[in-house]
Amino acid sequence: MNKYSEMSKTELLCEYEQVKAKYEELCNKGLSLDMSRGKPGADQLDLTLDMFNLVNEESGYKTRDGIDCRNYGGVDGIPEIKELFAEIFGVDTSKVIASGNASLSLMFDVISQAVTHGLGFEPWSKQGKLKFLCPVPGYDRHFSITEYFGIEMINVPMTENGPDMDIVEELIKDSSVKGMWCVPKYSNPDGIVYSDETVKRLAAMKPAAGDFRIMWDNAYAIHPVFGDRAEILNILKECEKAGDPDKVIMFTSTSKITFPGAGVAALAASDNNIAAIKRRMSVQTIGPDKLNQLRHARLLPDMAAVTEHMKRHSAILAPKFDTVLRGLETQLGGLGIARWSKPQGGYFISMFVENGCAKRIVEMCREAGLVLTGAGATYPYGKDPDDSNIRIAPSFPTCAELEMATELLCAVTRLVCLEKLING
Amino acid sequence: MNKYSEMSKTELLCEYEQVKAKYEELCNKGLSLDMSRGKPGADQLDLTLDMFNLVNEESGYKTRDGIDCRNYGGVDGIPEIKELFAEIFGVDTSKVIASGNASLSLMFDVISQAVTHGLGFEPWSKQGKLKFLCPVPGYDRHFSITEYFGIEMINVPMTENGPDMDIVEELIKDSSVKGMWCVPKYSNPDGIVYSDETVKRLAAMKPAAGDFRIMWDNAYAIHPVFGDRAEILNILKECEKAGDPDKVIMFTSTSKITFPGAGVAALAASDNNIAAIKRRMSVQTIGPDKLNQLRHARLLPDMAAVTEHMKRHSAILAPKFDTVLRGLETQLGGLGIARWSKPQGGYFISMFVENGCAKRIVEMCREAGLVLTGAGATYPYGKDPDDSNIRIAPSFPTCAELEMATELLCAVTRLVCLEKLING
Repeated sequence: MNKYSEMSKTELLCEYEQVKAKYEELCNKGLSLDMSRGKPGADQLDLTLDMFNLVNEESGYKTRDGIDCRNYGGVDGIPEIKELFAEIFGVDTSKVIASGNASLSLMFDVISQAVTHGLGFEPWSKQGKLKFLCPVPGYDRHFSITEYFGIEMINVPMTENGPDMDIVEELIKDSSVKGMWCVPKYSNPDGIVYSDETVKRLAAMKPAAGDFRIMWDNAYAIHPVFGDRAEILNILKECEKAGDPDKVIMFTSTSKITFPGAGVAALAASDNNIAAIKRRMSVQTIGPDKLNQLRHARLLPDMAAVTEHMKRHSAILAPKFDTVLRGLETQLGGLGIARWSKPQGGYFISMFVENGCAKRIVEMCREAGLVLTGAGATYPYGKDPDDSNIRIAPSFPTCAELEMATELLCAVTRLVCLEKLING
Repeated sequence: MNKYSEMSKTELLCEYEQVKAKYEELCNKGLSLDMSRGKPGADQLDLTLDMFNLVNEESGYKTRDGIDCRNYGGVDGIPEIKELFAEIFGVDTSKVIASGNASLSLMFDVISQAVTHGLGFEPWSKQGKLKFLCPVPGYDRHFSITEYFGIEMINVPMTENGPDMDIVEELIKDSSVKGMWCVPKYSNPDGIVYSDETVKRLAAMKPAAGDFRIMWDNAYAIHPVFGDRAEILNILKECEKAGDPDKVIMFTSTSKITFPGAGVAALAASDNNIAAIKRRMSVQTIGPDKLNQLRHARLLPDMAAVTEHMKRHSAILAPKFDTVLRGLETQLGGLGIARWSKPQGGYFISMFVENGCAKRIVEMCREAGLVLTGAGATYPYGKDPDDSNIRIAPSFPTCAELEMATELLCAVTRLVCLEKLING
């Protein structure tokens, strides 16, 4: 196809009529499609049905060490599940806390604690203005947490190797910059894998704030879609080497390994951070749901089992990602009006359209029956300064639905860009 | 038996020798007993083994309304479980939030939110000095939460009808008094049931602080040990009548109905409070473990099922309470050195010994192989001003163990009191 920017006015008008007809045809279908959230499909959830039968009267409800998982106790999780997470994080078991079903809550609670009590440092609430670095586009729920606690968010552009480290290293000279959100592998939404250099620079940097914390949300640590899983450097080990082990807290969960609503979340951190977090947790809870942790430990006894299990997920996800990527390439490729990520893992495809067009595209898709993540949601305060990023979540719909959804998205994208070109 | 206070010095010395011999005999048995925490015994946990088979591939994992409980979503819990808690709380379902496995976390998070954001009022952290009323003796984990947030705790004595309301009504004239802990039924540790008059006065009182909150921890709402369950007035309804529905937040959980480590917790409150709490929760989590909620809703579909289930608990607990109460009566009755509660429900027996003796008794019991809740733990800051209260938790040990434990406790109590009387 020809680039729109090289078309004459007449050609543009002609194209506009064609695309408009296509769009109206799709509108008339009364579609009801949703590519808005990174939610596994029912077929993925079916991969884990065995879990229901792993803890019961016959198989027992005690840990290896004889702890009755039905009763109270054990604030940091049962040994079996801590060991599994230790392998996933690549750290010693003593540096792991396994908890309930939501890594989001672990992150919220760590920020909350930093604000009210500190993690061995003066509470952030007593330090005046607070700022956080937010690589963009990023995960809306991270931004919601920082906004909730009144922490000013500063956008940091992403490169193909992770956050732009030149900019990060400049911004951390401000002592009110207290931390940074990172999704280091198959980032949300770009699917970017942080390079070794990026991890090393993050570990080596010396923020003016001694209580700076990297919130390392490795949500897709073992979630390839195509091929083998990407490996990244272990940030905690790199921080240890740099003499600064307290600077990072790592998070992950089984939400997209087992059940999103009933998985197990975990964090890993330095001894100091773990001790501080446990001090708070011992006031906040008598312990996590150990029965669910035991179910998980029995379903996924080691990394080999996890890797096999994740292959079954990618076998379901790969055709879905393929469907969307093929649709985008066929219907938008070469037009010069959009670019998009080709992620090797994670849950999203990130599309960038002409500046000022994203909101309108998402809105028109919605009117035609396709729900996308709200334009702007991938930026702090919901404000995409260029109004150009659209997050596509291909995991929940079927391939047939994705084909239709992509067709609609492409038609709308063309239409909106054509309008912009024609009108000025 | 004769009152120790009426004995002559010689009689006391003679008694001392006898009790000392008894104590040494018990010491030599190398006991290892624990009456320290309100933990259900394994036989109680076995009452709920059916739960493991209620949610699986055959029985399905969807709510009545077709929600797939395996996936994300639904911050306030599934309809079925909210309905059950609505019945337990005696409120409309819209006023209920059902969450994870720990009501303690719900309470911690509500206080945390009040401190950092308020619940529709100015954050407590911006209001200077904060105080909380703590009926004593009370629940140590409540006190830990208030202490964690730097809230000064003021002791309020308990009467047989609940907290001394004359004192409460005086203390709330101080606008820095922001709230109050209550365990209104079968209180921890005294087993006191709040009278209707107490509930009415709590509902009617007008604290100087407009943002005063009663933390109504109805942990033993449906937990009789002997006879039918006690009924108390519905504090939320009473607060509504008094035109002050926002003054109370109610909590409960299934920790001592199903599994302590893997139950479901819930809160109930006014529309304003629920809206404020949901605003925070929607940032903090994508939703609770709905599969576990579904298991609970299927095991306990209505109050009739719950009541039947609780009868099986009390059938196990009653002989245990009986064993301890009988032991105390036989071995301490009439001596005039101790009094204790005769609770009709809940998880504790509360014993008061001569002032200045509790710490020493708990310590000597520990040396002889019996762990009791630390003396002082039932008071804010772990400080029992009279050093006289000892909390006994009879639920976890067997009846044989309880008999032995009570024998030891009584011998030690006599010994310590005799020492005090003899030495002046």
